[in-house]
Amino acid sequence: MSEKLRGNILVTGANRGIGLELVRQLAQSIGENAHIYACCREIEGPRAQALKNLSTPGKITLVKLDLSDEGSISSAVQAVSRNMEAGGLNLLINNAAINRPESPAPLSATGKQHMMDVYETNVVGPFLLVKMLLPLLQKAAEMDSEGDQMSCSRSAIVNISTLISSIEKCPESFHIAQMYPYRTSKAALNMLTRCHAEEFKRHNILVTAVHPGWVRTEMGGEKAPLTPEDSVAGMLSVMLSLSNKHSGMLLDWQGNTIPW
Amino acid sequence: MSEKLRGNILVTGANRGIGLELVRQLAQSIGENAHIYACCREIEGPRAQALKNLSTPGKITLVKLDLSDEGSISSAVQAVSRNMEAGGLNLLINNAAINRPESPAPLSATGKQHMMDVYETNVVGPFLLVKMLLPLLQKAAEMDSEGDQMSCSRSAIVNISTLISSIEKCPESFHIAQMYPYRTSKAALNMLTRCHAEEFKRHNILVTAVHPGWVRTEMGGEKAPLTPEDSVAGMLSVMLSLSNKHSGMLLDWQGNTIPW
Repeated sequence: MSEKLRGNILVTGANRGIGLELVRQLAQSIGENAHIYACCREIEGPRAQALKNLSTPGKITLVKLDLSDEGSISSAVQAVSRNMEAGGLNLLINNAAINRPESPAPLSATGKQHMMDVYETNVVGPFLLVKMLLPLLQKAAEMDSEGDQMSCSRSAIVNISTLISSIEKCPESFHIAQMYPYRTSKAALNMLTRCHAEEFKRHNILVTAVHPGWVRTEMGGEKAPLTPEDSVAGMLSVMLSLSNKHSGMLLDWQGNTIPW
Repeated sequence: MSEKLRGNILVTGANRGIGLELVRQLAQSIGENAHIYACCREIEGPRAQALKNLSTPGKITLVKLDLSDEGSISSAVQAVSRNMEAGGLNLLINNAAINRPESPAPLSATGKQHMMDVYETNVVGPFLLVKMLLPLLQKAAEMDSEGDQMSCSRSAIVNISTLISSIEKCPESFHIAQMYPYRTSKAALNMLTRCHAEEFKRHNILVTAVHPGWVRTEMGGEKAPLTPEDSVAGMLSVMLSLSNKHSGMLLDWQGNTIPW
C-alpha cells in the first residue's frame, strides 16, 4: 500500500484471527500520528498475549470490550473518548463475532440461546457501539474539509461480514455449514450496514461491509485456503479505495461486490 | 380462487390485521375436511374477540401461542399435534411479528431491549416453531404421492415478510421509517426462509417469504393504500400458485420477486 490509513482507528475482536492481523498490519502501515484502539473481552491473561506482544508504546491502546454487555460497551467508549481528548474516531472496524453452536451447526443442535447469543454479539453489540461512538465519528468527519467526499481516512465504519451473510448465495454453502444463528445474524448485520450508510451519509460517514474470504483462523478452520496475512492485506487495500459509491455495499477482500 | 388450499393450516398472529383476515378468507375458501389452527397470545378476552366471532365449529381451533416463550411454543405444538391425530400439517403461515419502538423508530429512540425483543419474536419464534412442527410438516409431505412436486396444499411454510426486509431496497423507505429492530429482524427472517428452503427440499416441504403490501392495519397505519381484504386475497392466490421454483424466494402479494 502506498497510501496510508490515518487518525484514530478502533478494531473489535482484536486478540486473535483477523482482528489481531488487522492490528498488526495497521500498526506497521499507519502514519506517525495515527493510533489504534485494540478491543477484546480480556485484556489480561493468555488470550490477550499475542496482542500484547504487538504493542508499540504510544501506537496501540488495549481496551476491554464485551459486546454482549451494554455496560462494557459504554465503559469502553468512555475510555476511548477520554484518551482521544480533542480528536475524533476516523475508522471503526466491527470485526468481533461469535459462531454458536460449533460448525457445521446443524438445525438439530441449535437452540434458542444460540440464536439469541449470536445475534446479541454480532448485531446488537455493533448497533450499540456505533450509537455510542457516533459523536466521535461525526467529530472526525467534521474536522476534515473534504466536502461530501467520504473515505476510511476521514470517518468510516467497516463491518466485517462474510460470504455466508449473502441470502442469495446461501444454497452454495448451506450443505457444508448450516449455521442458522451465524447466517441470520450476518444477514441482519448487512441490513444494519445499509441502514447506517443511509442514516450517516448526511454526516459524511462511510459505512461498508467487507467479506474477508475464507481464512485460516480459529473460526475459519484449517481447511480454509486464505492466510490471515493475505486476507487482511486485501481488506486494507479495499478500505483505502472506498469512496461514496461503496457506502452501503457488501464487498469481498478483493473489492468485488457480493449480492445481498 | 377456483382451486382451494386444503388439509391442516396453522396461522400465527391470527387475532388481528393480516392474520385475522387470513383466517377469515381461508375459512371461507378451504374444503370440507380442511382445518385452521388460529394462534395468538391471548385466546380469551377482548383481543381475541374478532377471531372468536369468526369461529366456525369444527373448522377453526384457537391455540394459545406466545412466540417469545419457548414453553408456550412447545405447548401449542403439543396441542395441535394431539388435535390432528394421524394427520400432518400442510401449511404453516408465520404471520406474527412485532415492531418496537413505535414507528418511525429512529436510532435515538432504539435500545438494546428493542433489538433483542423484536428478534426473539420475529425470528427466533418462527425458528423454534418450525423446528417443533417439522415432524408434522414431514408427515403431510409423505402422505402425498406427488413425487418431488412441492405446493402449499402438500406441505409448506409461508413466512410473512415485508418489502422493508429488502436490504437492496432499504434506501427507498429508510427516510420515512428507520425501524432498525424490525428491518434487521426481517432480513434475518429472509435468511431463515432460504436456509429452511434449502434444508427441507429433501422432505418436499416448500418454504417461501411473502410481502403482503403496505396494508391498512394497526401496524401498517391509516395511510397504507391496501386493504387487508385485497392483500390477503392476493397472497392466498400467490400461495396457490407456488411450486418448487418459488421455494427460497421472497415474493410480493402479486407474485413479483423482491430482491434480497
